[in-house]
Amino acid sequence: MDILKECILREGKSLPGGLLKVDSFLNHQLNPRLMKAVAEEFAQRFADTSFNKVLTIEASGIAPALMVGVLLDLPVVFIKKKKPHTMEQAFTTQVFSFTKQQTSDLSLSREFLSAADRVLFIDDFLACGNAALAVLSLIEQAGASLVGMGFVIEKAFQHGSQQLRERGIRVESLAIIESLENCQIHLRP
Amino acid sequence: MDILKECILREGKSLPGGLLKVDSFLNHQLNPRLMKAVAEEFAQRFADTSFNKVLTIEASGIAPALMVGVLLDLPVVFIKKKKPHTMEQAFTTQVFSFTKQQTSDLSLSREFLSAADRVLFIDDFLACGNAALAVLSLIEQAGASLVGMGFVIEKAFQHGSQQLRERGIRVESLAIIESLENCQIHLRP
Repeated sequence: MDILKECILREGKSLPGGLLKVDSFLNHQLNPRLMKAVAEEFAQRFADTSFNKVLTIEASGIAPALMVGVLLDLPVVFIKKKKPHTMEQAFTTQVFSFTKQQTSDLSLSREFLSAADRVLFIDDFLACGNAALAVLSLIEQAGASLVGMGFVIEKAFQHGSQQLRERGIRVESLAIIESLENCQIHLRP
Repeated sequence: MDILKECILREGKSLPGGLLKVDSFLNHQLNPRLMKAVAEEFAQRFADTSFNKVLTIEASGIAPALMVGVLLDLPVVFIKKKKPHTMEQAFTTQVFSFTKQQTSDLSLSREFLSAADRVLFIDDFLACGNAALAVLSLIEQAGASLVGMGFVIEKAFQHGSQQLRERGIRVESLAIIESLENCQIHLRP
């Protein structure tokens, strides 16, 4: 994933509080070549397993998840952070975001996840793993199987992957930030 | 756009209040083949104009806009409905959503839209045009040029396209709903 590392080092901004701002290619503006490359890399890393659905969380997860779904011809479901009044039967859970310092109610319609599904979860960031664990709760509520979780960027110093692996979840991160100390971006080689 | 019409007629649900629920392929679950076809159709319809950026609004606009960006190798910017605290210099405006019965603050970082940009705006739905007019305000604040607006589904009975065309905006809608009277979906042939 050279293109991803280049984007992070060239355009990423390390902010106080362990924040990494990647607005120019992932969280506000999307780089189309990067999105294609990200999907190809995820498809390759999870090529040894089978799944029939890609799951993500709105809004920044949609782009990488959709690219995987289009590449593999699979439906993509994006979990909503606010339950629309038109959603009748839903799996729900809460998640606290350290980045945004707020709690969201995650909602997933019961129509789109069932015990028959084998899902790959894709998201933009893995930090402390709160969002991923909340998604795991939704998957468990549905009785579906989780084949793995893929993240575009993991912040290793916030220990999310450790939390997920302790639960037996396979985690694949395309770029791993070792630290953002002194507002310097240190990528794992 | 036969695939789009088929999805709407087979899976769309007409709800009281002029609402069309298309959660199974556009607003919650995404159909990957439809998303590819939608991008090809938009690219063809706007092939006679030139633009360097695709603009949309989170969250349901991201999928069709990204597919256009990837097809044409152009960056995609998604306008945020809530200004992140890490966004410093932003163009902002307000929009009221009849569907959600709430006001959102649209924010677009000044880093990603300027007077040098020629943009195509892509969104999932055109209803009364409030969101599109709010986006026009952001584009005008940036001094950028708008080459046109493309919508996956237009609800003609809510007159958004009329509002936009009166302002000189080129509008392309891939499927047009004439009415949802008696909870029946009537597509324009």
